[in-house]
Amino acid sequence: MNAKARSVGDVTPLTAHFNQALVLSSGAELPEFDLVYETYGTLNTNRSNAILICHALSGTHHVAGTYGGDARTAGWWNNMVGPGKPVDTNRFFVVGVNNLGGCNGSTGPASINARTGKPYGASFPFVTVEDWVHAQARLADHLNIDCFAAVMGGSLGAMQALQWALTYPARLRHAVVIAAAPKLSAQNIGFNEVARQAITTDPDFHGGDYYAHGVIPFHGLRLARMLGHITYLSDDAMMEKFGRELLAGKHKFSLEVEFEIESYLRYQGDKFTERFDANTYLIMTKALDYFDPAASSAGNLSAAMAKTKAATLVVSFTTDWRFSPARSKEIVKSLLDNALPVTYAEIESTQGHDAFLMENEHYFSVVRTYLNRVAQEVNA
Amino acid sequence: MNAKARSVGDVTPLTAHFNQALVLSSGAELPEFDLVYETYGTLNTNRSNAILICHALSGTHHVAGTYGGDARTAGWWNNMVGPGKPVDTNRFFVVGVNNLGGCNGSTGPASINARTGKPYGASFPFVTVEDWVHAQARLADHLNIDCFAAVMGGSLGAMQALQWALTYPARLRHAVVIAAAPKLSAQNIGFNEVARQAITTDPDFHGGDYYAHGVIPFHGLRLARMLGHITYLSDDAMMEKFGRELLAGKHKFSLEVEFEIESYLRYQGDKFTERFDANTYLIMTKALDYFDPAASSAGNLSAAMAKTKAATLVVSFTTDWRFSPARSKEIVKSLLDNALPVTYAEIESTQGHDAFLMENEHYFSVVRTYLNRVAQEVNA
Repeated sequence: MNAKARSVGDVTPLTAHFNQALVLSSGAELPEFDLVYETYGTLNTNRSNAILICHALSGTHHVAGTYGGDARTAGWWNNMVGPGKPVDTNRFFVVGVNNLGGCNGSTGPASINARTGKPYGASFPFVTVEDWVHAQARLADHLNIDCFAAVMGGSLGAMQALQWALTYPARLRHAVVIAAAPKLSAQNIGFNEVARQAITTDPDFHGGDYYAHGVIPFHGLRLARMLGHITYLSDDAMMEKFGRELLAGKHKFSLEVEFEIESYLRYQGDKFTERFDANTYLIMTKALDYFDPAASSAGNLSAAMAKTKAATLVVSFTTDWRFSPARSKEIVKSLLDNALPVTYAEIESTQGHDAFLMENEHYFSVVRTYLNRVAQEVNA
Repeated sequence: MNAKARSVGDVTPLTAHFNQALVLSSGAELPEFDLVYETYGTLNTNRSNAILICHALSGTHHVAGTYGGDARTAGWWNNMVGPGKPVDTNRFFVVGVNNLGGCNGSTGPASINARTGKPYGASFPFVTVEDWVHAQARLADHLNIDCFAAVMGGSLGAMQALQWALTYPARLRHAVVIAAAPKLSAQNIGFNEVARQAITTDPDFHGGDYYAHGVIPFHGLRLARMLGHITYLSDDAMMEKFGRELLAGKHKFSLEVEFEIESYLRYQGDKFTERFDANTYLIMTKALDYFDPAASSAGNLSAAMAKTKAATLVVSFTTDWRFSPARSKEIVKSLLDNALPVTYAEIESTQGHDAFLMENEHYFSVVRTYLNRVAQEVNA
């Protein structure tokens, strides 16, 4: 970490309202919608130094900085984004946005549907990565940003960066694609499906309209998150962190929590239900499952990527078994097949998929070096 | 497969009743218990050709053959066990047994507790692999078998074979240890814990006493099995088998089943609830979590294995990520450290953990060749 790196400090979310209808991939239409976002740093005079950061499954617009000086409110990529950090807010104007269907202020299933005066609930349409990118483009218009210096994200966020390159090739110079895959495998979809079934078979789900019942599908959402956490960590990382340690030092021969790993998963599951909406979880996992830019080119990713123009940084992590380095290399290959500029880094890490959120010298220096070049290019 | 190989044909389960109390690892006591078992082949006159086959998480005593001539009732290892098959019932007397805590006839949580006249339910004690081995030794006594030619199993069944070598070193000549690990990793325990939480947080679980309510924790048990299936298959096997195929050929943008893999998992989950008891699932996963023979030797598996005498065949499968080849090699090393005879085969397979149940030329020929040698040794 740069010795002079610091936090962006306290930040304030903003809301942009869009009253022109958005037609979604499903054919459904949102007559109007809000996007909540945050910005850090200063947009330069030729408006060329903006970086859009897209969030993953459970992320938000709150990428960096704090609220009310409380360090516990630090943004989810606070280690990556700030003055002197790899995404240097002294040089870049950084935009974080909560996606459609979310539960952090942007229009989603818990929002009031103006037509009915009630929460959307089960009637909120399923959205795709492409839909998110269209909505984010509206935000770019709102901010008068014609072309991003970079669109960037990890995991599902990285899929949005790829989709930007496909949908709006003239509106970004660089895509930064971290811990991603060009589509989910059957195993990935399987894990998502178990999570969805956990939520939808919870008796408190009420077909998605649990808001009206004053309950949440607590147990289902908790299970979904517990399962998610196992897939975010590597087997090695879990052994390092928890091993087979017993909370009580011995077996209890009961259903009480016994192993440290059980305690960790239950805690993570419980905590998640306090901040996340189950319908949003369903929408996010479906967006993941649907993502498959090669589908419209008969499965040929290289053919699909032919319409992109962005230079791309692709980063993977050795122990990420959710989206392994082999999946990142599929993306790299598809760009090379089109003679597009691509930089690839495979980072040694024991942290599994979660590595994209963690500080790691090699990883951060790759991003820093890459974005330094971008800064020179756009005179940031 | 041997051209002359055939099925053992129709078989009949038997029940052995034991009225001497069994003290369990937990300190709890079963005053009496039943074990359901099947046998195939003929015990030779010096009673030296018996092979005990131990089942895995959801297995039973019904290893081979059929009931009432119905091919759909074939035993779970019918491809492995029979006349002319790798475990050749022309030469060996094979015993399959349902474990304590099971739901297929051996005493378990759905059995009537003679003290109360009601099903044990939540009061059925948690058992360990060691407890199973003690109970199986009672069955061996019942059958007048002093020493097995081999004790054999896959996955949790293989852990029982290892435990036999530790607990009754003089009562087996060979252990056949397939697709096993010497203990579960934190990730393994994590998956088991998600499955248990799915069951125990199902409102129909009623603290384990759902029998009295005339319900089963259907949704929880279904989720547990869906998750299990993902971990039994390799990512590659799932891609080969299901890919990203859509049932309807296009996205539905709803919570209906869309991908083939979703359909498969839901079907497997549903089917499982018809044949398996949720309390047994809890007991089996706990037995897996508890298994750790090295624990009493300060984590030193080689020190623990010093008391074993059996010759051992260890088999692993390249794409098994639940118990990877590296875990089998830990077992091999601990035996070599004690200068014990050990044969190791790592089988190329795309089938993941499930490979231990599937016919595979290399795998079957390894088992066949090994047991041919055993047959000569015991004059079978």
